[in-house]
Amino acid sequence: MSDSIKYLLDEARLPRSWYNIVADLPTPPPPFLNPETQKPVVTDDLIDLFPETVIEQEFATERDIEIPGPVRDIYRQWRPSPLHRARRLEKVLDTPAKIYFKYEGVSPTGSHKPNTSVAQAFYHKEGGVKRLATETGAGQWGSSAAFAGSLFGLEVDIYMIRASYEQKPYRRALMETYGARCVPSPSNETVVGRGMLAKKADHRGSLGLAMSEAVEVARRRDDTGYALGSVMNHVVLHQTVVGVEALAQMEMAGDYPDIVIGCTGGGANFAGIAFPFIGEELRGGRKTRIIGVEPAACPSLSRGKFAYDYGDAGHLLPLMKMHTLGSNFQPPGFHSAGLRYHGMAPLVSHVMDLGLMEARSYHQSKIFEAGILFARTEGILPAPEANHAIRGAIDEALRCRTEGRSEVILFNLCGHGHFDMHAYIDHAEGKLRDIDYDEGELAKSLATLPMEQVAAA
Amino acid sequence: MSDSIKYLLDEARLPRSWYNIVADLPTPPPPFLNPETQKPVVTDDLIDLFPETVIEQEFATERDIEIPGPVRDIYRQWRPSPLHRARRLEKVLDTPAKIYFKYEGVSPTGSHKPNTSVAQAFYHKEGGVKRLATETGAGQWGSSAAFAGSLFGLEVDIYMIRASYEQKPYRRALMETYGARCVPSPSNETVVGRGMLAKKADHRGSLGLAMSEAVEVARRRDDTGYALGSVMNHVVLHQTVVGVEALAQMEMAGDYPDIVIGCTGGGANFAGIAFPFIGEELRGGRKTRIIGVEPAACPSLSRGKFAYDYGDAGHLLPLMKMHTLGSNFQPPGFHSAGLRYHGMAPLVSHVMDLGLMEARSYHQSKIFEAGILFARTEGILPAPEANHAIRGAIDEALRCRTEGRSEVILFNLCGHGHFDMHAYIDHAEGKLRDIDYDEGELAKSLATLPMEQVAAA
Repeated sequence: MSDSIKYLLDEARLPRSWYNIVADLPTPPPPFLNPETQKPVVTDDLIDLFPETVIEQEFATERDIEIPGPVRDIYRQWRPSPLHRARRLEKVLDTPAKIYFKYEGVSPTGSHKPNTSVAQAFYHKEGGVKRLATETGAGQWGSSAAFAGSLFGLEVDIYMIRASYEQKPYRRALMETYGARCVPSPSNETVVGRGMLAKKADHRGSLGLAMSEAVEVARRRDDTGYALGSVMNHVVLHQTVVGVEALAQMEMAGDYPDIVIGCTGGGANFAGIAFPFIGEELRGGRKTRIIGVEPAACPSLSRGKFAYDYGDAGHLLPLMKMHTLGSNFQPPGFHSAGLRYHGMAPLVSHVMDLGLMEARSYHQSKIFEAGILFARTEGILPAPEANHAIRGAIDEALRCRTEGRSEVILFNLCGHGHFDMHAYIDHAEGKLRDIDYDEGELAKSLATLPMEQVAAA
Repeated sequence: MSDSIKYLLDEARLPRSWYNIVADLPTPPPPFLNPETQKPVVTDDLIDLFPETVIEQEFATERDIEIPGPVRDIYRQWRPSPLHRARRLEKVLDTPAKIYFKYEGVSPTGSHKPNTSVAQAFYHKEGGVKRLATETGAGQWGSSAAFAGSLFGLEVDIYMIRASYEQKPYRRALMETYGARCVPSPSNETVVGRGMLAKKADHRGSLGLAMSEAVEVARRRDDTGYALGSVMNHVVLHQTVVGVEALAQMEMAGDYPDIVIGCTGGGANFAGIAFPFIGEELRGGRKTRIIGVEPAACPSLSRGKFAYDYGDAGHLLPLMKMHTLGSNFQPPGFHSAGLRYHGMAPLVSHVMDLGLMEARSYHQSKIFEAGILFARTEGILPAPEANHAIRGAIDEALRCRTEGRSEVILFNLCGHGHFDMHAYIDHAEGKLRDIDYDEGELAKSLATLPMEQVAAA
């Protein structure tokens, strides 16, 4: 159809491999460091947390990494996900640009997160553990981990930021319906948690702290592995199924993107759609502008330093070189909890450092305006995180109108917002403020980066 | 693929017509009656509420009714919806049966309701009104009407049962994000509403009452049309796109259903999947068992009388012959608000009367057990309404195991449950009681049916 709205791949065309950008990068990413010895991490440093195949993926340099059959069998429930042409949005914007989006909200939990939770659960099951320990903030990751655990017969313990645990009973109920156990973090179940509670009995929790609790439990218990929702290389790898599909679907549509856009929190959904297109360029294919869009209240790419930093509050995970606001940085409250992380995936950070992408940030009123326009034209009500990518795409389309250019824009609509209606209510009631982080706090946080070799961003 | 999990139709294969079962029925359905004159309804009786094409569809006798281009253009956002084979559920049930389901949760509002809201909004826009008035209980219909209105540039006023208005702020927020106005019903905006409030200032509302408010507004205002989410013939017609697609997808799968199952509230989602298969049988094709599954607390097919009754509390809509519990019947509280309606679509009632289908009912603990098993195996967390169909499918699959029969079962998974987590919380906390309606109340309600010609069910 010449006026197609969506481009579907049959499940027989589900990708057989994830794409590992390391194979095509001009320089390898800086190694992870053991936080105690500050020497490059080796397999033994990670073996308490991850199954062997996952550790291999952390260090992998080959381009195509096979997606195991049982993972593909579950992916096929909703994958390949649809690629849409946003024709009604284009019309309302009166732009000569073509806007495409990849829609990850069709997954059972409504976001891109199962792309990696299913793979991680499979490898952990294969590795012989009985239980996964993980953290969650907004709940998108936690519910996806719970979903994956239920399919592979793994117990799932989820350390959920206490503030979210109390404010988001529906997300918690989703995890529990899948059979997972939710624990408000900080908890009394870990040394890290007890330490925090001793200092502050009513601690509201943070993502970095919940990560440390899950890591501690996975280290202590032989029957328990650690799963995480973003940042590390294997997570980024699993998300590339999005971009590999998008490459084939753009070909179906007879177009190739001039611009690829994703929102960035930990970086995995962004990398998932962007890396396969960067790979095309690195191997001599067409050049694409790659744009990461982040919240102004937590702008690790725009304002962070590219430096070694801790991934979690308890300093149990490896030191990773990344664009970071410092592991002590506490972003102000805003409605995209999935983007409230102090650092950026090391691979995304390295790609940024190599000049292969650009970043921009928006305040939340601007991104909600974009999301509501999108809902009223395209019909899908997006997750607040996804609204960042939509804002970026709309602004590029408006630039195209001004410049009279018919560029092709592709963005990742990483999830629906049916669990995020409180944010839309706040917007409707005028309660959604454009909060900035405190510059003094940021400077203080950056001053405590753990290594000397801090390079200016 | 021989082990396919889902069967997708390209959007070029989106049906061009809805299926009108009236063309194939051995006897025509009893006519609607004007509630004042008790004579068969004519076009003029409905012209204040509906555009001409919708009224034509109420009376239509031709088999295939064309889906207008602009409606198909919007359907293509998510249609054809996927047909899934529930292989993991089959395995857990250890059944020789094959279980297929059609998944309507991929629509922007997460249910089958946009299949008709989009069509209704198109016809109303074409008819020249500026505004739609409608009612909503659970909010699935209201949000779908709001979505459709936003796409066609119609204002949408939604009379929302006051109890839901207060208990479901997220559903309300979804409607408002699409630009609709939600009014708690009973309201001061209508004669019917004011009358109820005068009798009972803290009236919690009911679907029949909210319908009357919307109908009254549409009658009074020239610029306003009335839209409804189930029951009437045109709504049932629009939902048949589900079954027409399913016929083609079952062919792709190389199977034909021995059993087709849907949940029944007003009857439209059930009819949507079932009628095209009944039509095949009526035209000499294969016979299929057709099963409607309803809540034990509101069992219009199982326990209602087949008689003329009012569709709404204010007696503004036509008298329709249907399986009814009486328009004064107040079902006890249970968690499938979308199935809390006293009557059954006249066409479904007629099909039941002709012996072309069977009905069964379940208490809510049984249907939630089924829904949770489904979530943990298939990954999709279903709407409580859809859990009825799942329960029916599981019980048929278990019968097949007992009998050693490999029958083919197809059911309609009419929506996801992401807006219904409060119900899952109640289930998890053991607060979900199996409530029965009061037999005395039912007898009283049935004693007040408006016409003499009441036939025993």
